Amino acid sequence: MKCFKSVLDAGDLNALVQEILEIKKNPHANKHLGENKTMGMIFLNPSLRTRLSTQKAAENLGMKVISLNMNDGWQLEMEDGTVMNDDKAEHVKEAAAVIGSYCDIIGIRSFANLNNRDDDYREEILNKFITHSGVPIVSLESGTLHPLQSLADLVTIEEFKTKPRPKVVMTWAPHPKALPQAVPNSFAQWMCKADVDFVITNPEGYDLDPQFTEGADVIHDQELALSGADFVYSKNWSSFSDYGRVLTTPRNWMIDERKMAVTGDAKFMHCLPVRRNVVVADEVIDGPNSIVIQQAANREFATQAVIKRMLEAL
Amino acid sequence: MKCFKSVLDAGDLNALVQEILEIKKNPHANKHLGENKTMGMIFLNPSLRTRLSTQKAAENLGMKVISLNMNDGWQLEMEDGTVMNDDKAEHVKEAAAVIGSYCDIIGIRSFANLNNRDDDYREEILNKFITHSGVPIVSLESGTLHPLQSLADLVTIEEFKTKPRPKVVMTWAPHPKALPQAVPNSFAQWMCKADVDFVITNPEGYDLDPQFTEGADVIHDQELALSGADFVYSKNWSSFSDYGRVLTTPRNWMIDERKMAVTGDAKFMHCLPVRRNVVVADEVIDGPNSIVIQQAANREFATQAVIKRMLEAL
Amino acid sequence: MKCFKSVLDAGDLNALVQEILEIKKNPHANKHLGENKTMGMIFLNPSLRTRLSTQKAAENLGMKVISLNMNDGWQLEMEDGTVMNDDKAEHVKEAAAVIGSYCDIIGIRSFANLNNRDDDYREEILNKFITHSGVPIVSLESGTLHPLQSLADLVTIEEFKTKPRPKVVMTWAPHPKALPQAVPNSFAQWMCKADVDFVITNPEGYDLDPQFTEGADVIHDQELALSGADFVYSKNWSSFSDYGRVLTTPRNWMIDERKMAVTGDAKFMHCLPVRRNVVVADEVIDGPNSIVIQQAANREFATQAVIKRMLEAL
Repeated sequence: MKCFKSVLDAGDLNALVQEILEIKKNPHANKHLGENKTMGMIFLNPSLRTRLSTQKAAENLGMKVISLNMNDGWQLEMEDGTVMNDDKAEHVKEAAAVIGSYCDIIGIRSFANLNNRDDDYREEILNKFITHSGVPIVSLESGTLHPLQSLADLVTIEEFKTKPRPKVVMTWAPHPKALPQAVPNSFAQWMCKADVDFVITNPEGYDLDPQFTEGADVIHDQELALSGADFVYSKNWSSFSDYGRVLTTPRNWMIDERKMAVTGDAKFMHCLPVRRNVVVADEVIDGPNSIVIQQAANREFATQAVIKRMLEAL
Repeated sequence: MKCFKSVLDAGDLNALVQEILEIKKNPHANKHLGENKTMGMIFLNPSLRTRLSTQKAAENLGMKVISLNMNDGWQLEMEDGTVMNDDKAEHVKEAAAVIGSYCDIIGIRSFANLNNRDDDYREEILNKFITHSGVPIVSLESGTLHPLQSLADLVTIEEFKTKPRPKVVMTWAPHPKALPQAVPNSFAQWMCKADVDFVITNPEGYDLDPQFTEGADVIHDQELALSGADFVYSKNWSSFSDYGRVLTTPRNWMIDERKMAVTGDAKFMHCLPVRRNVVVADEVIDGPNSIVIQQAANREFATQAVIKRMLEAL
Repeated sequence: MKCFKSVLDAGDLNALVQEILEIKKNPHANKHLGENKTMGMIFLNPSLRTRLSTQKAAENLGMKVISLNMNDGWQLEMEDGTVMNDDKAEHVKEAAAVIGSYCDIIGIRSFANLNNRDDDYREEILNKFITHSGVPIVSLESGTLHPLQSLADLVTIEEFKTKPRPKVVMTWAPHPKALPQAVPNSFAQWMCKADVDFVITNPEGYDLDPQFTEGADVIHDQELALSGADFVYSKNWSSFSDYGRVLTTPRNWMIDERKMAVTGDAKFMHCLPVRRNVVVADEVIDGPNSIVIQQAANREFATQAVIKRMLEAL
């Protein structure tokens, strides 16, 4: 594996999930694979789960980890041909190549600006690191996708499913801020390729980019969508069509016990961080069917499988 | 040891001090105890000695260390039942549980706000991490106590004492800012349980919370208190009764050579950082009886003993 | 080696360069040299290459690495005898001694303020760490010099030279901001001691401190200077005589293909980060004669040789 930026880099999903479940049983079994190897983690925005789970995964494999908060330093220029007479101190071409000279694998975390859809969906920083660093690149979330989260989600569904082909419903949720579409785009893209019946439900105006939802049922009636669900994945996102905007915030899209009652005793999922009593009621996230902590815990092993494959291919 | 937040978690003090002195002789003797184990360090405010000595202590034991500055990311919600529609992006319940899923032991550093005494003395963040993380928690200083500092202080007194039961005097000192009571509360709590004669001296209005000073002599005449002292521990704190306020700043409470002259050739102690020529005169801190650097150096070994006991109990 | 703050600490340059080239062939050959040893990295300003390459170098030698961003914490007082009643929370005397008690070697990075030449050229923070820490100190760039950069530059010249005594030209370049003289001072100091013909070219008013340029030809006509060059080292700096000021910004001092045409097929060098199309044209930095990434990559091995010598002398 030379690059991990979407489900398209994952190969056979079942094989990957099984590899992760093996790693989880014995996370230190491959400690020598990463000996004398260095993982670089580049953060352009804050992170808790991703930072901790990626460091842990790389160290489980025996790698050294170097992390860099770009916000503590200078801004990178992305455009080619610019006269760099302004506030950006370094071009991504040099930054990526230099970091690639010190690191055997680089993880990079960026975030949508939500100002300009074309800019965000072009995934410039991630793609420039892939082009210029000379080493394998793992997306630690990008402007439009969050594949390590989705992979951990898929593993968690595998662990908790009680039938061969469960019904998975991803539902839009209210939120006080405009959030990127990276997590829902990515979850949709993975679920459309997994052995599940996948339904997306959101208010009108919040339909995701069709390139990621092909094959999913999109239903604008939340209760209809939730009916008989085995997994409910709640998440807010801002509008794709009216890019980056919060169109409406219907508070009744929050997942509470009444909503969960129409499901088939579904498990509740969320990528975290989550706004309690806005996205989901305390009664649900604190209840026995909540598997949000298990999802987050699986980030470690999902990431470890990806880094392991990259190390094996070095 | 499942938790270290005060002297009450330390067990027999003499046994712990002896264990620390053994560790100091050979800090790498237990390198395999922490193999494949991860120490998480969570900082809600800046730290120099604590950050460095805790990382060092955990690495001496063979652990990996992950650190997270919460200030670089988002604020945690502490209250249960809140509708999280405001500026706080994640509830401490999820944050603690997730970090606990990646780390075998967590150290957490918080600070009193000095706005509301009940809030600070409730130690909400520390206690919520203890409740929700599922792993052993070490206080790296909390709103009201700083037990790793006090333990290092106790070891330093053991190393430098010249009589079985020395006289230890903790004296209030002037300072340009309002500081928490964590260090003096904690030092008082430990000294009241140690084999020392313990005296606290401070101006009227600066008496500490009696729950931590039971058994100590509190004297408002500084020179009387210092008379015959073997150890002088200088530290500023803001008022407990008139909570968080600086009532008066008598400059003549600074420790200088004239003050040290009434002691029994006492050693000078301070937890650092220290304001020179405000808290203590250059002539004293630069003099042969100053043991402030030795105190700071002992932070490493005190912390190592605590983490070692936690690893042994995993 | 007890200290590395300039070429004067490097000993025989050829021997050091050969040692670095050996390390580069097998960077992990001395992994046991740093076992149970800790490298502290103290940053007073942002850094990308220095932070990553120093951590990598120390870890290649088997050391643990602790890093501290002083900007995340408090300011250090540098003056002796001050009454610390203002904004500085800790004196460098204590900070250096305490960090020295946790670390076997300390690297420290500071930056010229460009306000007061005497202050910057006194190198107070670096020298106080040397005086008070009690351990070997590596400059990770100081107010006036950047010796690890220059050492990496020298190694790169050794690798790419095609004649025993190449002509090396350091040329001033335009830049939108006032920059310190550390990199050019240091490069000049090293080149004046190396087996090269060294020429400096800059506009009138930008002559460097003569203490670092003794033996170099200083020529104010850029094209004349570049004629027949084997290496062109481009870098902006602010005025030394009119201290810290940007006097003029002649855009035509940028290195482009026309300028490179008068050289002897010279290699292009820069310490990075570099402003493209201000300091150097895309056509040159993207061309086959650009060796800026190789320079940055050599930072790792140059630093490793310095730390290795310090470990051997512990």
